[in-house]
Amino acid sequence: MARQERAIRTRRAILEGAARMFNELGYEASTIGMLIERVQLTRGGLYFHFTSKEQLARAVLDEAVTREGVVPQALKMQEWVDLALLLAYRVPREPVLSASIQLSVDPKARSLFGTRWPDWMAVSTQLLTEAKERGELHFHIEPAQVARLVVGAWTGVQLVTVTLPEGNLSEEVSALFALLLPSIVPPEVLAKLDTSPYRAEHLLAAARSADAPPVPVAPS
Amino acid sequence: MARQERAIRTRRAILEGAARMFNELGYEASTIGMLIERVQLTRGGLYFHFTSKEQLARAVLDEAVTREGVVPQALKMQEWVDLALLLAYRVPREPVLSASIQLSVDPKARSLFGTRWPDWMAVSTQLLTEAKERGELHFHIEPAQVARLVVGAWTGVQLVTVTLPEGNLSEEVSALFALLLPSIVPPEVLAKLDTSPYRAEHLLAAARSADAPPVPVAPS
Repeated sequence: MARQERAIRTRRAILEGAARMFNELGYEASTIGMLIERVQLTRGGLYFHFTSKEQLARAVLDEAVTREGVVPQALKMQEWVDLALLLAYRVPREPVLSASIQLSVDPKARSLFGTRWPDWMAVSTQLLTEAKERGELHFHIEPAQVARLVVGAWTGVQLVTVTLPEGNLSEEVSALFALLLPSIVPPEVLAKLDTSPYRAEHLLAAARSADAPPVPVAPS
Repeated sequence: MARQERAIRTRRAILEGAARMFNELGYEASTIGMLIERVQLTRGGLYFHFTSKEQLARAVLDEAVTREGVVPQALKMQEWVDLALLLAYRVPREPVLSASIQLSVDPKARSLFGTRWPDWMAVSTQLLTEAKERGELHFHIEPAQVARLVVGAWTGVQLVTVTLPEGNLSEEVSALFALLLPSIVPPEVLAKLDTSPYRAEHLLAAARSADAPPVPVAPS
């Protein structure tokens, strides 16, 4: 393995280790010392990539807003639904994504780094605005308001689902959208939307297939 | 002021001080020492009421599930809506209630004390089940599923709204219910439901008026 590739994998392993630590302990209780034990590196080995807990948290948040797996659809609203379903599939499987939520609900981390919710709201507002221009929304729907509410609702469903013994985030988000969509889109659009909890897995597999770069990079 | 009444007020002031501290710093960074400074008591004065941070957190969570202000309505679904609107009005004004949410999204606190979400789901499921028996829900609605989703969605909207410069939780929750309700209740029920963001203030004022006991009841 080339030196640069090894460095990339090590950095990834550190970041995922930090994300798991933030998820389990919270930001305040997490320390670089604990992370060194978890990823089995020397202090120097870790410091080559990250020199502080703050830097690790920022790197986690840098990756939080991702549209990976979303591809153009006949209906813009399908892309909006896909974004939510893809996140629901990925968050339980990718500690960096779940840690970005954990950092956003931590008062200390939030005071230092803010959250990525405004960015999610912007992405969602843009998709909804395009959908509205194409006539896919009820005429009275305000994209920014729906974006704000759905970013909140999605986040809360994730936070609660993780505490439920049999909680399945894909199924919960699919059910949430089944409740919300009739108020957002007219029946003829609703009839064409696929909100299946199994949709995201296929979209992601397609995006990550041979011709696409492998994501997330496997830890070394 | 009678000795017992003074003790009740002191205990309340300590609990609210602790709640504000948990909200601002998170559970892990909070300490009894800081709380003593904040509430301007001696260590002995505080220890008379609470002997540990754990005990304070438990006392906060003990008060989390409250139906104060909800009164019988012609439609059970109005009581369900009222519960959500009352909480939306109270949480930004009552630090003990917002702290219970903060403790529920804190990994350390959650590992020690759990959350009150199962209790909220039970309260919500019961109201929805009664509403369903009265024919107020679409026939395909599963009360437990909707209760679970709405506890999550409500919580996430609260967590996101608190970070927005002009965020108004009553308005956000009212808008969330306006989106959700058409999928839950038939049109003839929907037409009779009041989801106004101003409703809770009146309900609460009525519950707290002269002839009602002052609530929240101060614990001894």
